[in-house]
Amino acid sequence: MSSDFTIHNLPFGIFSTARQPNPRVGVAIGDQIIDMTLAANGALFDEFLTEKQKTVFQLATLNEFIRLGRSVWRQVRQVLQAALTEPTGQHQLPDHAFVPMTDAIMHLPVQIGDYTDFYSSIDHASNVGKMFRDPANALLPNWRHLPVGYHGRASSVVVSGTDIRRPSGQMMPKGATEPVFGPSRRLDFELETAFIVGKDTALGTVLTPADFDEHVFGIVLFNDWSARDIQQWEYVPLGPFLGKSFGSSMSPWVVTMEALAPFRVPGYVQAPPPLPYLQETNPLPNLDIHLEVELIPASGDDKTGKTVISRSNQRFLYWSQAQQLAHHTVNGCNLRVGDLMASGTISGPDRSSWGSLLELSWGGAEPLRLANGETRTFLDNGDTVTFRGWAGGGEHRVGFGEVTGRIVG
Amino acid sequence: MSSDFTIHNLPFGIFSTARQPNPRVGVAIGDQIIDMTLAANGALFDEFLTEKQKTVFQLATLNEFIRLGRSVWRQVRQVLQAALTEPTGQHQLPDHAFVPMTDAIMHLPVQIGDYTDFYSSIDHASNVGKMFRDPANALLPNWRHLPVGYHGRASSVVVSGTDIRRPSGQMMPKGATEPVFGPSRRLDFELETAFIVGKDTALGTVLTPADFDEHVFGIVLFNDWSARDIQQWEYVPLGPFLGKSFGSSMSPWVVTMEALAPFRVPGYVQAPPPLPYLQETNPLPNLDIHLEVELIPASGDDKTGKTVISRSNQRFLYWSQAQQLAHHTVNGCNLRVGDLMASGTISGPDRSSWGSLLELSWGGAEPLRLANGETRTFLDNGDTVTFRGWAGGGEHRVGFGEVTGRIVG
Repeated sequence: MSSDFTIHNLPFGIFSTARQPNPRVGVAIGDQIIDMTLAANGALFDEFLTEKQKTVFQLATLNEFIRLGRSVWRQVRQVLQAALTEPTGQHQLPDHAFVPMTDAIMHLPVQIGDYTDFYSSIDHASNVGKMFRDPANALLPNWRHLPVGYHGRASSVVVSGTDIRRPSGQMMPKGATEPVFGPSRRLDFELETAFIVGKDTALGTVLTPADFDEHVFGIVLFNDWSARDIQQWEYVPLGPFLGKSFGSSMSPWVVTMEALAPFRVPGYVQAPPPLPYLQETNPLPNLDIHLEVELIPASGDDKTGKTVISRSNQRFLYWSQAQQLAHHTVNGCNLRVGDLMASGTISGPDRSSWGSLLELSWGGAEPLRLANGETRTFLDNGDTVTFRGWAGGGEHRVGFGEVTGRIVG
Repeated sequence: MSSDFTIHNLPFGIFSTARQPNPRVGVAIGDQIIDMTLAANGALFDEFLTEKQKTVFQLATLNEFIRLGRSVWRQVRQVLQAALTEPTGQHQLPDHAFVPMTDAIMHLPVQIGDYTDFYSSIDHASNVGKMFRDPANALLPNWRHLPVGYHGRASSVVVSGTDIRRPSGQMMPKGATEPVFGPSRRLDFELETAFIVGKDTALGTVLTPADFDEHVFGIVLFNDWSARDIQQWEYVPLGPFLGKSFGSSMSPWVVTMEALAPFRVPGYVQAPPPLPYLQETNPLPNLDIHLEVELIPASGDDKTGKTVISRSNQRFLYWSQAQQLAHHTVNGCNLRVGDLMASGTISGPDRSSWGSLLELSWGGAEPLRLANGETRTFLDNGDTVTFRGWAGGGEHRVGFGEVTGRIVG
């Protein structure tokens, strides 16, 4: 398998090392990280960055780098590609700027202002509707008219690799007349991606789908862990709250929209056609990003327990990310660099592509079999869930690495 | 009327002046602001603050001051009270540290990490349930078991005095079969207060109601402006989103829990009794904070149009703020200094105490009459809505000042 981090990718992240423990900006290439504080020491970026601007690479989040704007993201990328292609050319990267990934600790790449979660996969929304409401009218009346979304909790978004503690809370068990308190018994993952806002906007600014490229920095993998039983009891009428806010996991490398541009694909035919403010002008509004979910039980190892339990794709989003952005701002809501907008669970039409255990076990009724013979309806303590994502392949592969988390009791 | 800002209050805020435009920490007393950067220049706080710690008063938000912890909030308050009581005593405030309020511009007092909105007034929840659901079963099944809450949008919280732009969005008019797009026709205020978190907690930390005083810095007035028509169409199943995220207004002075301590009153008898994690140990879990809403139409002036349209009280919260805090963290959700937790609309049992136009006009069916003869169901462009709040009276009054905002089209 070729690397996720080819020269066509060059995602940005925040890393530190034991020797130099200050978190700082890095760019992934193969199994190495380019330490951007060292890369910027020479003249590499002098044509478009002042000395003061170069200090953004010393910071513990990408926010100030992102705030420099799209033309800077593009130029940094181009200069790095040139330097990596012709190491003896005009643009040079010093040897000591390369850090082996195995030596690095990855951190949350951005300071998230607000985190929004959409609900934009039609198969996911339909599955949930069939399970909990009316199979004949699985989608609610508003679903095909707007990208339904809600505000999530930003403080509890953690970087990949962070353990996830099973939350306790109130639940109303089936048939009970009083709620009970205890650890969630229906702990789930949600297979999502999320985009990161790249430009501040003032209150009152309304963006269109065509503004997407100028206003979005990049995409990460996102696991919106969910306690289905807590959520089920609390969510009417104001939406998910404690069933989600105990933790959400994010991949450490932000893949830029620039790197993903070659993988644009057509979207769904939207019927009825959306209102004008939501209409796409881009004939290729979706992205062909392959997604997979692997579960490793506590008892398992690489050979016996590791099971890929879902293979999905970001192209299964009915509402494009550009439509999400336009909808989010149509009321004048302001955005800040680092705001995170997640897709909602991405399920495809086939059962093998469903993006949550809620769907894969059909609400717990149909246990899933793992490679080692164990079964799962929801997550056990000790289970590790890993998402991977990539576009393209071979030398043109643009991958996300992974987002992983282990459930602790 | 005596001042809101007596010596028993001493709320904290962020202000600037034309002459010195850097936003910095101030404390309100009467019609003056104590410039804390100047107050701290002498030896006033030397017993408990280092020179480095004193620099928190130079910052543009209260967050770092708050992060110094409860014992510092208390000591600063005590020293200021002593200095104001005996101006020639051991503790002295230099004359030039006092700035007339009329010379000051007030700013948002904290950087808000996450903003949560509860729904804790039983009369408000009952009114909404009667209007939109079943009058005989106005409260949803979970309502008496937990303080229902949801995540709000932090980016669009603005300081008092900021104009509020009427949002546009999708709505489904009564009887229509397709949604329409346009400016909201049912723009409303929501009379709320909000508390500000005073201590960072790590993921996994569970707080009890008894932890409230240690973990909460103070309270502000809060107007959670709502576009009822946008909200009505979008909110099933994931809760309010664009119907709220166009703007929320906050009063500039944070009244400390210390100042409000004398105004604690009993809470509701909660039936059924809540689960143990929500049980109050404080016999006086509520606060006797008088609240009022004034509406001034564009056509009106102080004499002709100004109408107090609601008189309510924070003691009408069924779920106490300490219970809200405990509920919010029972799943291990981490908190950050500056997090805002709003009460939800505070309505009392009588119509004169209802906290939104939705209720006061009973869903638009019963227009409200203003002093100048105009009527309102929802807000018109040019309307100014002002909330005031205070506890106690006379020389012991502890007031919040006001939160005000004008609707612009």
